[in-house]
Amino acid sequence: MPSSLSEIEPAKFQSFDTETDPAQVAPRLAALRGEMRKLELDGFLIPLSDAHRGESLPACERRLAFVTGFTGSAGLALISPEKAALLVDGRYTLQAPAQTDTSLIDVLPLPQTHPADWLRETVPPNSRVGYNPWLHTLSEIRKWSRDLKDHAALVPTPDLVASIWPDRPAPPRGQVELLGDNRAGISAREKIRSLQRQLADRKADALVLNVPESICWLFNIRGRDVPNTPVVLSFAIIPAAGTPILFLDPDKLEPNQSKELSAIANIQPEDAFPKAVERLKSDGAAIWLDPATVPQFVGATSKKDRFSLVEHPDPIATEKACKNPAELDGMREAHRLDGVAMARFLHWFDNNAPTGQLTEIDIASALEGFRRLEPSLFDISFDTISGAGPDGAIVHYRVTKETNRRLNPGELMLVDSGGQYLSGTTDITRTLFCQSASAEQKDRFTRVLKGMIAISMLCFPEGTNGAQIDILARLPLWQVGLNYNHGTGHGVGAGLAVHEGPAGIAPRYQVPLQAGMILSNEPGYYREGAYGIRTENLLHVTKSPETDGFLAFETLTLAPIDTRLINSEMLSPTETDWLNTYHARVLREIGPGLNKEVLNWLEQATSAI
Amino acid sequence: MPSSLSEIEPAKFQSFDTETDPAQVAPRLAALRGEMRKLELDGFLIPLSDAHRGESLPACERRLAFVTGFTGSAGLALISPEKAALLVDGRYTLQAPAQTDTSLIDVLPLPQTHPADWLRETVPPNSRVGYNPWLHTLSEIRKWSRDLKDHAALVPTPDLVASIWPDRPAPPRGQVELLGDNRAGISAREKIRSLQRQLADRKADALVLNVPESICWLFNIRGRDVPNTPVVLSFAIIPAAGTPILFLDPDKLEPNQSKELSAIANIQPEDAFPKAVERLKSDGAAIWLDPATVPQFVGATSKKDRFSLVEHPDPIATEKACKNPAELDGMREAHRLDGVAMARFLHWFDNNAPTGQLTEIDIASALEGFRRLEPSLFDISFDTISGAGPDGAIVHYRVTKETNRRLNPGELMLVDSGGQYLSGTTDITRTLFCQSASAEQKDRFTRVLKGMIAISMLCFPEGTNGAQIDILARLPLWQVGLNYNHGTGHGVGAGLAVHEGPAGIAPRYQVPLQAGMILSNEPGYYREGAYGIRTENLLHVTKSPETDGFLAFETLTLAPIDTRLINSEMLSPTETDWLNTYHARVLREIGPGLNKEVLNWLEQATSAI
Repeated sequence: MPSSLSEIEPAKFQSFDTETDPAQVAPRLAALRGEMRKLELDGFLIPLSDAHRGESLPACERRLAFVTGFTGSAGLALISPEKAALLVDGRYTLQAPAQTDTSLIDVLPLPQTHPADWLRETVPPNSRVGYNPWLHTLSEIRKWSRDLKDHAALVPTPDLVASIWPDRPAPPRGQVELLGDNRAGISAREKIRSLQRQLADRKADALVLNVPESICWLFNIRGRDVPNTPVVLSFAIIPAAGTPILFLDPDKLEPNQSKELSAIANIQPEDAFPKAVERLKSDGAAIWLDPATVPQFVGATSKKDRFSLVEHPDPIATEKACKNPAELDGMREAHRLDGVAMARFLHWFDNNAPTGQLTEIDIASALEGFRRLEPSLFDISFDTISGAGPDGAIVHYRVTKETNRRLNPGELMLVDSGGQYLSGTTDITRTLFCQSASAEQKDRFTRVLKGMIAISMLCFPEGTNGAQIDILARLPLWQVGLNYNHGTGHGVGAGLAVHEGPAGIAPRYQVPLQAGMILSNEPGYYREGAYGIRTENLLHVTKSPETDGFLAFETLTLAPIDTRLINSEMLSPTETDWLNTYHARVLREIGPGLNKEVLNWLEQATSAI
Repeated sequence: MPSSLSEIEPAKFQSFDTETDPAQVAPRLAALRGEMRKLELDGFLIPLSDAHRGESLPACERRLAFVTGFTGSAGLALISPEKAALLVDGRYTLQAPAQTDTSLIDVLPLPQTHPADWLRETVPPNSRVGYNPWLHTLSEIRKWSRDLKDHAALVPTPDLVASIWPDRPAPPRGQVELLGDNRAGISAREKIRSLQRQLADRKADALVLNVPESICWLFNIRGRDVPNTPVVLSFAIIPAAGTPILFLDPDKLEPNQSKELSAIANIQPEDAFPKAVERLKSDGAAIWLDPATVPQFVGATSKKDRFSLVEHPDPIATEKACKNPAELDGMREAHRLDGVAMARFLHWFDNNAPTGQLTEIDIASALEGFRRLEPSLFDISFDTISGAGPDGAIVHYRVTKETNRRLNPGELMLVDSGGQYLSGTTDITRTLFCQSASAEQKDRFTRVLKGMIAISMLCFPEGTNGAQIDILARLPLWQVGLNYNHGTGHGVGAGLAVHEGPAGIAPRYQVPLQAGMILSNEPGYYREGAYGIRTENLLHVTKSPETDGFLAFETLTLAPIDTRLINSEMLSPTETDWLNTYHARVLREIGPGLNKEVLNWLEQATSAI
């Protein structure tokens, strides 16, 4: 365990490099336009996503970065023979121009720029605009086709980017992990049976799945194909009766795993999936798919086809969101382990921050180091957001060697991070400080905390959605004319993606909260150019112990909230009670895992106010 | 002014009669089926609405009541040659069976019963189901046509109910009122010009309007065609350039009004409207319509048509919701007048309720009597909900001579009412009591009040919608596992309908609140079989005086809230301050309009707690 700066090991799970080379844009764009010419295309779309719609992409799927240099987490490139545009949202208006070649590619803002509008203005009437039918959803292509009607036709093409990518990395072959019924809580057999009943209810012959989180949940498997999210990149077809087909690279399975999995699924290589879809179509099947996630290829129809589509959201999304008791036990365990790492980290920070020498990369690396002390940690659940002073005000800040800065005395430090443990997934934000904090910073910190406590303590009737309760986290800021420009919370997977649907806490989430769901609770306040504050715990939606028909929250996260940043006069007695009770619980549950020095520190950090 | 029971005049604007005669159902159903046979129909739809989609129907448009006997405010009848169903929501599950002939018509619950499902089960494959294309919206018929696809076709028919209704009342010919620019705040010319700019922006040739509230707002007219809502039943076509056509019965206009209105509109009789729509279609116009409100007739297309539809919400709805300074002044004046009536009524109630002799009809009639003392009152804005004891727990209770009951000692009295004044529209609920109230009643009353105050005091950023803030009104009830089963607030028109869109305070309202909107704020609590509590003020959305980019509420309603029902220990100092400040304002603004006796009472009723 590092206790001074020289001992901080480099991070293993996070890179602080800038991977961009704008000089590559010109030759790659030229090569791509050569491919477009061969197919007589007047335009071409390069989305960020792969066929699996995940947040993390394997290297071989980073087509947008390969062509444009842009490495952000959302974006779309539109290429014509003469012009090119890169559409990015407000988070990336500085990063995108720095990473691409702006003499060749116009960086345009989302959502103000509509892809169809750009194409209408750029390509001539009766144009052909190409797209890879594996990289866009059925809904997306339908919408853009409608938007371009009477001007241009969207035409599916082969993988043009792959054909200009000579040293393209191989697809990942992460080892598969079989969870076993105990860890998964429900056997894959039972899950498949329940799903097949839903297929029968909807009169569907088969359900097609392309989202690995859903597939992994259904078959009780995990993988190591992409960073941060332990999924197996795969496809699946679940027939209304009989054995599901699971499409994955057989090299990812040990022989004994292969045998075990074959008892519930017919294992086929991934490249057999397109043919299997074609077969469903030629058999005239009623195919259930989620048009918002399935690749356009799967839902593509032609006049002569006899099959039909049963369009309905992925039925696994909601089931997966409501965790079963085994998953909840795993998540609680993961949070105890993460609480130990956080306590060690916060103790280390308290000892080292006052020197004024720690950098954002030091802090992120040290935190990862404390997490790695736990052997069951196999990844971080996302790149740690480590923002010192004004960098803390950039909501989705990713520190690189170029942006890395020291935490100076008088500055706040925002650290949003999480771990992937064999038992589950964590996501926690704490706001720290260096030497001193101003009265304004304490006022804002306390308001953010009051909002977080209001959500934590809430009891609410069944049927309430996250859009309704979001305001409680904002009210203490609204009272002084302040706010924060992001949602209050997102769904969190159990040993899966740190962001998952369908529920969350923000005006856009109309899905009722249900018992078993796990949500983040992370109000914040950001003063541009000065500091950022966010306090985040994960919550588990439970049945209210007191009132029939009401739900409540169980807090999963176990780490102290810095009481030195609180203006305690601003807390109501109920809020103070909540905080003291929470801290007493943190000490009780985390203390036993700590050595004497850190335990002493934790006793201090969790003492009642 | 009545001060004892014998002096209560009968209500003029509200009837307490039960107008239903189940014996009429058999012959009328038989006659209707005769008409269906002539047209070879296997089914027929009778909706509640007329072509204008208003809450109040003139007598000649009450087709559903004529055929089924059911007089509720929402419902749909489905008729086949052998079977018939009346679909009503939870409010009417008792009333509907009592009013219709249940040996001939099955009363089925909404929303559990889908019209298309009933028809699929009832009419044979390849059936023809008739509907009057003036009584259903374009959206409604499209949806049901899709739902019935491959089973039955929906076919437009003439007005079958009219043809079996020998003594059908004549259409109303209420006198038109011209507001004048001062009262309307914006001239009709200016409103039309602004609308025509919107037509140009959407590349529409003409906007078709069927909702009288929109038409009356646009032309600055009002009418007396239906109870409660001072509209002129009319249609309008607004061309992108040139003079709008206003379709209304010319008998409703005095010659001088006719002349004045002709300066801004081409006045044509209502029965010229269908031909004008046909002409737009044959001219190949781009017709802007709101598919959610326009009669299906207007949007009906056939293969050979060259016209196109620009489908978009009624642009007047949002403009109308944001009141201009003159409308706001009028609404403030109406609330002062209504506050005087309410003070006189509450004083009278306080003197008379303790006898235990007052009935619900007495109370509603007396309140109307106090309102009628003000000469500028011309109607009530809806039938007064006057619920004593357990009747108060029926959210949409309408008292009749059959249900009328005495207010007994120890019971609560819920009175939800409003007036239509020349200056504007009011809507207010107060909960009163007879002799004494229990600790539980006071606890619930105080929680409801805390919720109402929380909304009243709220400051919130622009862009916030009513779905987000609704929870604040419920929180004090949720804290003890209670709730209420209705929205917290609805939009209110200025001298128009007491319920208007597009904004409101409830989970279903996703429309951002905007300065100038007027909303009700009416949390409640209902204990079935025991009592009902509701406290309602109207609020005006204003720019926050303190914070740029924030909105706040101005309370319009001016009437005391009974402090004897408050458990003052449950109020925070801020809440107590709000109440005392509100009461001081009520006394200041209403007091000067009262005689000494009532003023003395009001001073008592508004004294600080």
